[in-house]
This record gives sequence, C-alpha cells and structure tokens, in this order.
Amino acid sequence: MPSVTSLEGSSVPVKKSILDLFTDVRSRTVNICSGLQTEDYVVQPVSDVSPPKWHLAHTTWFFETFILKEALDGYREFDTDFGFLFNSYYETVGERVIRSNRGNITRPGVDRIMAYRAHVDENMAKLMDIDSFSDEMRMRTELGLNHEMQHQELLYTDIKYILGHNPLFPPLHESVNVDQVELAKEKGTVKIPEGIYKIGFDGDGFHFDNERNPHRVFLESFEIDKLPVTAGEYLEFMESGGYGDFRFWHADAWDWVNANGVDSPLYFHKVDGKWKRYTLAGLKDVKLDEALVHVSYYEAAAFANWKGRRLPTEFEWEVASDQIRWGFCWEWTNSAYLPYPGFKTADGALGEYNGKFMVNQMVLRGASPATYSNHSRHTYRNFFHPHLQWQFSGFRLANNI
Amino acid sequence: MPSVTSLEGSSVPVKKSILDLFTDVRSRTVNICSGLQTEDYVVQPVSDVSPPKWHLAHTTWFFETFILKEALDGYREFDTDFGFLFNSYYETVGERVIRSNRGNITRPGVDRIMAYRAHVDENMAKLMDIDSFSDEMRMRTELGLNHEMQHQELLYTDIKYILGHNPLFPPLHESVNVDQVELAKEKGTVKIPEGIYKIGFDGDGFHFDNERNPHRVFLESFEIDKLPVTAGEYLEFMESGGYGDFRFWHADAWDWVNANGVDSPLYFHKVDGKWKRYTLAGLKDVKLDEALVHVSYYEAAAFANWKGRRLPTEFEWEVASDQIRWGFCWEWTNSAYLPYPGFKTADGALGEYNGKFMVNQMVLRGASPATYSNHSRHTYRNFFHPHLQWQFSGFRLANNI
Amino acid sequence: MPSVTSLEGSSVPVKKSILDLFTDVRSRTVNICSGLQTEDYVVQPVSDVSPPKWHLAHTTWFFETFILKEALDGYREFDTDFGFLFNSYYETVGERVIRSNRGNITRPGVDRIMAYRAHVDENMAKLMDIDSFSDEMRMRTELGLNHEMQHQELLYTDIKYILGHNPLFPPLHESVNVDQVELAKEKGTVKIPEGIYKIGFDGDGFHFDNERNPHRVFLESFEIDKLPVTAGEYLEFMESGGYGDFRFWHADAWDWVNANGVDSPLYFHKVDGKWKRYTLAGLKDVKLDEALVHVSYYEAAAFANWKGRRLPTEFEWEVASDQIRWGFCWEWTNSAYLPYPGFKTADGALGEYNGKFMVNQMVLRGASPATYSNHSRHTYRNFFHPHLQWQFSGFRLANNI
Amino acid sequence: MPSVTSLEGSSVPVKKSILDLFTDVRSRTVNICSGLQTEDYVVQPVSDVSPPKWHLAHTTWFFETFILKEALDGYREFDTDFGFLFNSYYETVGERVIRSNRGNITRPGVDRIMAYRAHVDENMAKLMDIDSFSDEMRMRTELGLNHEMQHQELLYTDIKYILGHNPLFPPLHESVNVDQVELAKEKGTVKIPEGIYKIGFDGDGFHFDNERNPHRVFLESFEIDKLPVTAGEYLEFMESGGYGDFRFWHADAWDWVNANGVDSPLYFHKVDGKWKRYTLAGLKDVKLDEALVHVSYYEAAAFANWKGRRLPTEFEWEVASDQIRWGFCWEWTNSAYLPYPGFKTADGALGEYNGKFMVNQMVLRGASPATYSNHSRHTYRNFFHPHLQWQFSGFRLANNI
Repeated sequence: MPSVTSLEGSSVPVKKSILDLFTDVRSRTVNICSGLQTEDYVVQPVSDVSPPKWHLAHTTWFFETFILKEALDGYREFDTDFGFLFNSYYETVGERVIRSNRGNITRPGVDRIMAYRAHVDENMAKLMDIDSFSDEMRMRTELGLNHEMQHQELLYTDIKYILGHNPLFPPLHESVNVDQVELAKEKGTVKIPEGIYKIGFDGDGFHFDNERNPHRVFLESFEIDKLPVTAGEYLEFMESGGYGDFRFWHADAWDWVNANGVDSPLYFHKVDGKWKRYTLAGLKDVKLDEALVHVSYYEAAAFANWKGRRLPTEFEWEVASDQIRWGFCWEWTNSAYLPYPGFKTADGALGEYNGKFMVNQMVLRGASPATYSNHSRHTYRNFFHPHLQWQFSGFRLANNI
Repeated sequence: MPSVTSLEGSSVPVKKSILDLFTDVRSRTVNICSGLQTEDYVVQPVSDVSPPKWHLAHTTWFFETFILKEALDGYREFDTDFGFLFNSYYETVGERVIRSNRGNITRPGVDRIMAYRAHVDENMAKLMDIDSFSDEMRMRTELGLNHEMQHQELLYTDIKYILGHNPLFPPLHESVNVDQVELAKEKGTVKIPEGIYKIGFDGDGFHFDNERNPHRVFLESFEIDKLPVTAGEYLEFMESGGYGDFRFWHADAWDWVNANGVDSPLYFHKVDGKWKRYTLAGLKDVKLDEALVHVSYYEAAAFANWKGRRLPTEFEWEVASDQIRWGFCWEWTNSAYLPYPGFKTADGALGEYNGKFMVNQMVLRGASPATYSNHSRHTYRNFFHPHLQWQFSGFRLANNI
Repeated sequence: MPSVTSLEGSSVPVKKSILDLFTDVRSRTVNICSGLQTEDYVVQPVSDVSPPKWHLAHTTWFFETFILKEALDGYREFDTDFGFLFNSYYETVGERVIRSNRGNITRPGVDRIMAYRAHVDENMAKLMDIDSFSDEMRMRTELGLNHEMQHQELLYTDIKYILGHNPLFPPLHESVNVDQVELAKEKGTVKIPEGIYKIGFDGDGFHFDNERNPHRVFLESFEIDKLPVTAGEYLEFMESGGYGDFRFWHADAWDWVNANGVDSPLYFHKVDGKWKRYTLAGLKDVKLDEALVHVSYYEAAAFANWKGRRLPTEFEWEVASDQIRWGFCWEWTNSAYLPYPGFKTADGALGEYNGKFMVNQMVLRGASPATYSNHSRHTYRNFFHPHLQWQFSGFRLANNI
Repeated sequence: MPSVTSLEGSSVPVKKSILDLFTDVRSRTVNICSGLQTEDYVVQPVSDVSPPKWHLAHTTWFFETFILKEALDGYREFDTDFGFLFNSYYETVGERVIRSNRGNITRPGVDRIMAYRAHVDENMAKLMDIDSFSDEMRMRTELGLNHEMQHQELLYTDIKYILGHNPLFPPLHESVNVDQVELAKEKGTVKIPEGIYKIGFDGDGFHFDNERNPHRVFLESFEIDKLPVTAGEYLEFMESGGYGDFRFWHADAWDWVNANGVDSPLYFHKVDGKWKRYTLAGLKDVKLDEALVHVSYYEAAAFANWKGRRLPTEFEWEVASDQIRWGFCWEWTNSAYLPYPGFKTADGALGEYNGKFMVNQMVLRGASPATYSNHSRHTYRNFFHPHLQWQFSGFRLANNI
C-alpha cells in the first residue's frame, strides 16, 4: 500500500527491473483480495462494478493476448473461451461478454482463474528471461502492468461496493486503511500568477497516451488550497441543507439528486443521529479531519458553489502540483476529459485504450492511498462520469485572484 | 429422484414417520446441490431465480421461525440477522431483503449457511424427540417440509437457469436426468362425459390450503390426451412458422414474443442447423419423443390454437387424472389461479402462503421428475405467471366432444 | 345517456331499425365530444388512453374496411393512409401505428376526421338503403355499432383521464353526470341456493362471441349484495389504513400499491383535509352515498378482504342479476377472463375481436351510466387488466352461506 | 428569416429601438407557427421537444414575471395558474410542470395563449412608453427578447420533430427554407499560427453571461476549413460503413448507435434505394452540396475520426471566425460547455440562466438560417448534450499543423 508520504516525497520511485515490477504488481493484485471469501468474487451489483474474479482474469488476459500469444514461441493458450469471457472494451479482439452480465457468470470459478494467473505468470517470466524479449514487448508489459495497477484501484472500490452494500457491513479486513486518511493540519492556499505554462508528459518514462502531447496553456492568476476538503467541512454543507437547495446544483445534478434520493456521500449512514461511514475495515464514525471521499463531481461542484468558490481546472491543478499536497484522494477538477493538442491513439486494439472515453467524463487528478506507488504522476489524468461516487474521489477548492 | 413410474403407480407413498421424512427431505436438498461450486450458490440472474444459497437458508429459516423459536425451550437463534436476510414473502415477520437484490448478498457464505442448516436440523431432531411435540408443531413441520419440497424443484430450475445461461454450458452433473424424459409410446385420448364432479382435497393427509374446499363443478363432455405434447410435435409448430404468426397468440403473448425475440422454448439452441437444448447434464440433441418442457403458458396456448384444439381446464385435468399418465412435466391448464369456494387462509404469517398469489397466474397440474416423490396429488395446484418458461413446464391438449 | 332506471327496467330496449340505430350511435359519439376543444382531441397521456380523435376515426375505419370496401360498388376510399393510422389491434389488416405513439400524430386533424365520418356515414346510409344489403353486412354493421358503443365508453373515460390529469381540472361540461350516481337506499342481500345454472347468451339478438356457448355451471349457495359498494364505505377502508396493510392485498397488488404510491381511487384528491374527486363536471366533494368508481380489481379485492367477504364470480353475478340492481358502475368479479366451453372465434380479422384478450384480465359485469342503452345484457362480459383504475369500475360483495 | 449573407456581412445589425425590437421579435414567433394547425401546438413526442404552445406561453411568461409584475404599476396578472404551467427550469420561481408531462396538458388552448400574448404585449408597450422605464427593466427586456430568439430556433426544431415523425410527413409550409442551405463552392482552409488569443465578449452590447469574462488562451497552430461538411461528404462516410465500425466512435457513442439503431442523420429516409430527408418544406432528395444538419456530436466526432482529422475547439473556432464562413448551421466543437475564468451568475431566478447547464454538454458555435438576425455573435456559445440530433447541427473539420 503506498503511504501518503512517499507519494509526496517522490512521484518517481526507484525504477525496478521489469520482472521485479511484474512480480510485485501481480502479487499485490492477489493480496488485495486476501480478505475475500469465494462468494465475494462473483457478483456485479451495478454495471460499473465488476466481479473481483473478472478483474483477476481480465488483467491476466491482457498479458496472454497482447504479449504471450504474439511473442512466446509455442505458447499454449490456457483456455480458448477466456478471450471471449475476459475481454473488456476491446472491440477489436472479438465478441465480449456484455458488461452488465458479468456478475451472473459463475464458471470458471476462482480456483481456475488463479490457475490461469499462475500459467500466464510462469510464461511471462519465461519470456522476460529470454534474450529476444523485444522493446515492443517490454513496452506492452509495462502497459499491462499499469493497466493492472488501475484495476487494483478498481478492485478496492468494487470490493468496497460489494461488501458495503451487504446489510451486514462485513469488513474486507480490519487492517485495511486505504479509505481512512486523516489530513495534515497545515491548511492554507497557494497563489499562482498568470502566464503560459507547460502541460502534459514530456519525459522518457511510462505514461498514458492521454498525457500527450505536452503543450502550452495560458492561465489567469488563481489561488488553490493546499489540502482537499475534509469530511468535517462537508458535514457543514450537509447540515446547512445543501442537498435540498437547487441553487447549488447543476441541472443534471439536481435531477440525479432527486431521482436517486441522494443526501450524503456514498457509504454514509446516519446511525442513532450520528454519521457513520462504511470503510473497508468496517463501519466507523466519520472523523472531521479525514479526507472526504466517495463524492460525485456533482457533489463537489455543489459544495464549491455553496462556499462561493470553485474547483480548479486540471491545468491549474497540474501547474500547482509541486506546491500542494496530494495523494489523499482522487480530486475532481472542473475540466472535461478531452484530448490534448496532437493527441494520437495507437493502432489496433491497444489504441482503444483512452481516446474512446473522451466525452461525458470529468478529469480527476492526484492519487489515493489505494493507488500503486509507481502509478502516480503530476500529469496523470484519471476520469469518470460526473455522477459516480464509488471511487475514492474527493476534491479541493480554488478561486480567482 | 422420483421415478415416473412410481408417480403413476401410486400418488400416496408409504407414510414415513415425521423424523424420517424430515431427515430425507433435508438431505435431498443438500444432495441436489452436490454438483455445484461455491460460486454457483451466489447469483440471481433474473428476479424470479433465487441464489441456491438463499434456498438453503430460507427453507431452514422456516423451521427456526415458525417452530423452534416458538416451541423449543431455550432455543438459541443461530444468527439474529438471518430473519431479515432469508425471509421471502412473509411480510408479517419483518422487513425482508428485496427479491431482486438477493444475488448481490455474498455474505453469509455457503459454509455458514450449511452450519445454519446443521444447527436447525439438530434442534429439530431434539424437538421432535420430546414428548411435548405438539400436533400444531407436527403440522407446521409437515408444512415446512412440503415448503422445502417446493424449493427443491425451484433449486433444480434455478440452478439450471444459472448454469444454462453461462456461455460455457457447464452441466450440473452428467448423471442428473430430471429434464430428459422420454414419453411412453401409448398415445390416445380419454373421453369424459358431462356431469357434476367433485373437485379438491377431501381426505386426511397433508395438503395445501389452496386445494380446499372440496366442491362440485359441472363439466361439459370433453376429450383429453393420455400424454403431454412431445418435443417433436412442438418442433413442427416451430418449423411451420408458429412463432411468427400472430393469429395463434394472445395479444399479451404476441407482445411478449416480440419484445423478447422469443423463437423457441427456453434452453433451445440451434447449432449447425440442428436443435439442441441445454439440460442439467449438459447440451444435448433434442429428441423427438421426449416430453416438451420450458414453455410458457403463452406458447402452450399458441400451440393449441395452431392444432385447432385447446388446453384442458384444471377441473377437466383433475377429473381425468385417473385415466391419463402423468409425472413427465408440470402441465399448463387453461384455468387462472383463483380460490375455490370456501377457501380460507390461516391466520398470521402462515396465512400468507397461497392466497396472496391468486391473481395473474395460471394453474399447472401434474408433477415433474424433479418433484419429491411425496409431493404430488391429483388435487395439487401449482401456479406461475403465464410468460414464465424456466420451470419444467409442458402441457397436454384437450377438446370438446 | 342511459338512465339507471331504464337499465333495470329493461335490458332489451325496443329494437330500432338498423339505419336508425346507426344514426343514433354515430351521432352520440360526436355528442360525447361536444365539450372538447380541438387541443383535447390529440393527446395520449398513457398507453391505455387513446386520443379522442383516434376513437372518432377508428370506429369509422371499421365500417369502411369491413363493410364499404367489401360491399358498396364503386366505393372510393376516403384516404389510403387511414388504414394504417386507425387500425387498432387488427393484425390481419396491416401494419398499425404502435399504440403508445398515437398521441404524437397531430395530422390528420379533427376537421379532416369529421369529414371522414361524414363520408363514411353518407356511404353507409346509401348501402343500407339498397336492396342488396346482405345479412352478412347487416350483421357486421351491428357489430360495428356495438364496437362503437364500446368506444363511446372509452371516449368518456379517456377524456376524463386527459382533463382529470390537467392541473387546472377543467370540466368536460358542467351537465355531464355519468360519474356522479347516488345509490338507492334499499340495501340488503340476495340468497341464491346451490344448483346447476345456465350461463351465457342463448337468444337471437346481438351478442359478442365471448358470451357463447351457453353452458351449465354448478354453484354452491351464496349471498350477494343488492347494491355495489359506496364511496362512503370505501372511505372507511381508506381511513382505517387499508392502503398501508399488506395483509389485505394480493402480492402483485402490494407491489403495484408501493411502486405507484397508490393511496386512493383514481381522481381522488385531498383538499384542505377533505376528500374531493374529479368528475367530468369538475372537482366535487365525495358524497357518501354515491357509487364508488375508478378502483382497480386489486383495490376491490383488498376491500373485500378487509370486510371479511369476497367478490362474486361472474357466474354468481349472472345468476343473481335478476334480483340485484345494477347499472351504477362496471363491477369487478373474481373471475378471470377465459373462454366458455365451446367458444369459437370467427375467421379473419373479425375473429381477433375477443379471444386474443383471454389472459391476464378479470371480468367485469354490469354497466355504467356511460354505457349506451342498447349495450347492456345480463350475459355481457367486460374485461380489463386488474391494475387499471380509469374505467367506471366499482364492485359489490358476496359471501358463502 | 436571416439570410446567410447578412450573417456573414455583419454580425452586428443596425440597433433597433427596444420597442421596435420587441414588436419584431414577438411577431416573428407567431409567424413561425403560421403553418400549424391547432392540433400541432399540443404534443411533446420526446422530453427534449416542447409543445409549440408551450414555447408561445413560456416566452410570454418571462416578460410578465420578471418585468410587468415588478415594474408596471397596477398590472393585472393574466392568469395566476400560468406561473405554474409555463415556468421552465426556473426553480426559484415556484413549482413547475415536469418537462415530460407538458405534452398532455391540453388546456389552456392556443386561443387563450394568444390572448395571453396580446395582454402581455399591450402592457409591455405601455411600460416601455413611460418615462420611468428603468435601465434594469430595459436590460431584462433585452434578455427576454434574446430568450425568445432562442425559443424561436427551438420552435423550428420542435415543430420539425413533431411533423417529421408523423407518418404522413406533412410540411410546415412549402416555402420554409431554413433547413435547405446549399454551400458556396469556395472550399479551402485557413491557417492560424500559435499564440495567445483573446476569447469571450468584451464589448457593450447584449451578450449572455456565459460569454464572459473575456480572457486569454494559448493556441497551438492549426488549420480549419472555411466551410462546414456537406451532406454529400457525409453520405460517403455512411456508404463506407461508418455507422458499423466501432473504431470511429466514442464508447458512449457506440452504445448510443447500437441501443437506438442509428444509421443516418435524423430525418434521413432511404426511399427506393435513394436517400431523402424530411425538411420543413416536406420530403426532399438529399443534395450533395447542402450543409449537413441534424447530426449529433457523436456522429460529428466519428466522421472526423474517419477522415483522420478532428473538430476544432470552441477557442479555435472563435479565433478563426473572421476568416471562415458561417451561418449555415450550428457547428459542434470539441469543447465541453464549461465556465470561462471569472464567470459569475446573476442573483435570483435570472441567475439560473446558463451556469446550471455547464456539465455534460458540448459547445456549438455559429448560427443557422433559423437564427434571428440579431442573435449571432463570434462569441456566442450554444450547447447541447452530445447525443442530440434534432437541432440544426452540423460541423466543420480542423487539424494540427
């Protein structure tokens, strides 16, 4: 689990050899699931949440399909049905199981999927060991590992959704603490002067296609908080009637609040007059100083309106990122997820990775305690539809000066 | 598994002592599940299909709630949450888990539910052994066992739905043969003259409230087939374009056919130009002489129209039941499920058993090979909504004379 | 408008010549609409409610399609598009406008439809006047007129739905009184002994196919109220919490109550603590002695359960019909709409008339003040889905003795 | 109707006196409806399309509510129910009729709404004539007129939707030509160098709040077409299988295409193998040189991908607007609708105008032939959800250089 401190201290951890990284990432995925019972791996309560066993298999399928089948001589496919079952959005590769049906597919079971992982891991180790391991395959392996890091975060949030919607509120494990982060006390803001700034990834290491091209933007001067909003600050909004006052909400947001009866962040429950929230360690009191998470963009924007401030754009966030603290939660920005100038998708199935999602979603910046340590950058662009609450999503405020 | 022969030879098997019956029924429930993997116990692909683990727990909850908690001194409830989780439609007893959410509740797991069954079985054995085991509790025990027999049939059909909608078509077990019944060759019809006939249960043994009161009906003369319709006969309907010709269908049925793109019984698949069907033993060729199952009332009625004949009423069926063969499948009748004259519900939660379903459903008569041997009577009234296909439901034809 | 008295005094009014009847029925249809504004003719607020202009055209289309085009030499079709637009459920005749889209079809307008009516009326008069007017065409004309009588009742109820869901509650006309019937004071019940009774139409005059064949049924002895339930009696059920107590409701009914938040008959509104109801003459106080209307079968059955009594079957109702008063409202019975023994549909499109609706619906007997005087018989079988409230539907109670 | 030439020649028409402008705008609204029959004013086929009579009343309600009731001494409200009926999204002002129910409200009828317009127009004329007509009220009047100009465009598109979905394809009027614009022949592109550019409204005249604050953006160099895409160019995309190839579509777009079976722009119909399209003057052949309209953002983006180019951002469009031709159609840009730096909403109900829509929508720039002549500016920001086709929406292409 990445500590918040390490995220702040260094966004570029020591480079591991590719096999070390492979071993570390692959075992962390399984470790995340260590508190699960077999039954927990199967279900898909809503279409955005995938069954844990699907994540385990899908991340493995990536390595088999894009690397082993192409590059390892004599590789024997583990099971020819798996391409169909564990493909996700890769329309190029073949027919896929419709996303909202994933949760009814009880076979193959968890044991068989673990065997699939072992089979692929073993063959990947073999491939990485041979002299002819090409740069292209190394690059794909790195992409596959970063893909798996993303699914690790989804594993946490999907497991939380499954257990957190069980009327018994079972914990994943008492010691999991990715969603109980207290903020440092050092409040305050940072002022950034107007000017032309460089945005996007411009180095050599791994990055996603959506971080490119590096380009210039002009920013008016602004002020941004050093820390994201706390649960305590958000409780004030709730208690002042914020969910019942249309003036703070976007029109689509107001429809969403009313159609779904939303009156708090996800996982909040009022028990005997006191707010509690479900965490992966079980039901806990809401602490005033902890980072607010599990709010939608709609809620973030409504809170900002209520405060008379606003969310930063993703460009403001990136420019200020050296001077603020981050790593407590993913932070909604006021930027829609759109391509940077000169954005280009790769050819073929790997080209489906990011571009096809560049509509109807908002950008989140930062990282959460559930994020793999290697998987955060100042230029990293996360994105979700604006009504979604189930990620470790909070926000910080900004304003013009 | 009941043999078809025994159902024909005798509808009143040798009476077992209540404890023997209890032991037999309870162990059969677990045996039905013996081919399942843990993952299969959890899911609920559509609202009519319940997760197998829910059936295991719900049938157990019946004994705990209505018998042990009332009659066994010092009984310790296994888990106070279970009343909420495993109640079904018993509104009297307390808040229940909404039916369509059952499939997302991964905890308690299968092991814990098996422990629940053991705990209740042990205490029931204790209770049945003591002298003060009352007639009222004996009667409730018998009701609970008949309730469990009904859930055994649902277990078969729900397991079939879960495995039969998996793209891999896994069998429950190669040796299960409840849904592959070949019919005897002796075709022919029975003629029944007009007259007043006695209908309903009029004896001493166990029966459901919906079989009473016994009463008289006047029937015009009619003719009824000795055997239900075969898969081969139904294939002729399909191949003659029956699913595409509105003239054979009820208006609601025609909407159902078109909204769902129905063009065959459930579990039929055309593979390389040949009809196959999923059975609990895997994907098999359709055999011409086997009993047709997994059709809705809508399909049964359309077939009858196509043939220029009709379905029998439940009264005609009951009057003819001594002279026809049955036990191959549940048979849709042309009777809506309505109360008999003088029908009375019991007081309290047990009174919810049958009366509240007496609208919008059609009566099925007979029994299937999946029916517990003790659980079929000439007066037995099964019922389902007319669009449902997932039961072992077929039909036979009749006509006026 | 039929007076309640005339309905009681004589169910067989003086036979009119077919042309007189034609003229009378056709002009009554237009008269019913006399309080409408052009805008009111167009909309379809829910799929069961058709736009008034559609009723005007569809009833006319019947005469053009089944009579004029077949029997009148040289008949010029008014508009070849109308067959497509104003066909209803007659699948045989050709593609039809999907029912739930009818309300968006603003052209042809009301004036053009009135011209269509005039064109068809003129040609029908010509046809009925010639010597070769055949018995078959006379029979079809009579069917067309009875079809139009049914649509007259639907015109009343659909107009009421349209105006009654307008926030301004505009009356159709202050003097319309089809839905404000006070009941006679003579309460009491009728006792009918057990026995074999004759059911169904067995005479020479007009009747629908669903009233045949005449046949015998055996009835146990029963007791039935002389009058239907009043609004005042139903208010007691409401005030005692009837809508909130699941014990009185069928399972499907309870789902309906909760999904739709039903807490009163349709058109009831609590204004300043007092129950009012929308009538075609505007918003009025609920009167205790008036016939209850606009309840669903679900509500009728729940009320009966609350009273510890039951609804009569349609057979009981028919047998008792000479000794009870009726004509106040359509009365839900506890009979599902199913074919009588020997029921046969006509060939071709006219054969679609009734049989295709014989599933999922409950029978109503009687007649309402909106029913055409010629259009009620002791054997008449009306039918609707059990959740529908928008007809002039009430009920009376019965019990075993 | 604005001519395309005038739009190009001058985006700032001669300033009219406020009363002249009021008279001109108000009468144009009624003129747009001159081809309608009463029935056409009533319906709402989908929730985005409002009944024409609602537009007539709602635009009038604006002047009554925000001007007459506040500023005209002794003003008598026309009808106290209208505030409730014709409010749109102004949550501050009171309960409103849910948008998707508007089409079932047949009263008040068209005549009464025309009387409402006359009443308000007369009183507005009185108010504008008096010496105390304040600057605040003059500003609100101008806002009300610009609001009405927007609804004029919606009147065109909503009328088109209503008539264009009638199976008879009735024209509004043979002479209406707002949706049949042939493009000039002068193809070609404009190149814009990188640099800091000024964006947004920075003058004195009328503008919407969303056009402010004026601010600077940095643009990389780019190239943009002088003309939007023609119907002929789009036909090539269609005929090359563009609607069937997922590679060109956003993920949300691909879901939209498949869920709705989209295979052409709205109003396109293949008749006898040839593409026709419904226009407000009736069904016409598709002409290769006419401006493509009625495509969604999804379709615009897919076409651009197919061409290997992209849509311009709204900033690129604005910077290039002096050197390109426009006024043929509204043009989708690749910018999400978001606030400019320093954007501020007004207080109270008028503040609801634009800010609340700043999520989930894409910006369109330009103007269509249906746009009021006074109502187009280089800085004007139109916006709609990306799946909507019913506006006069096309697009032009750009690329990096």
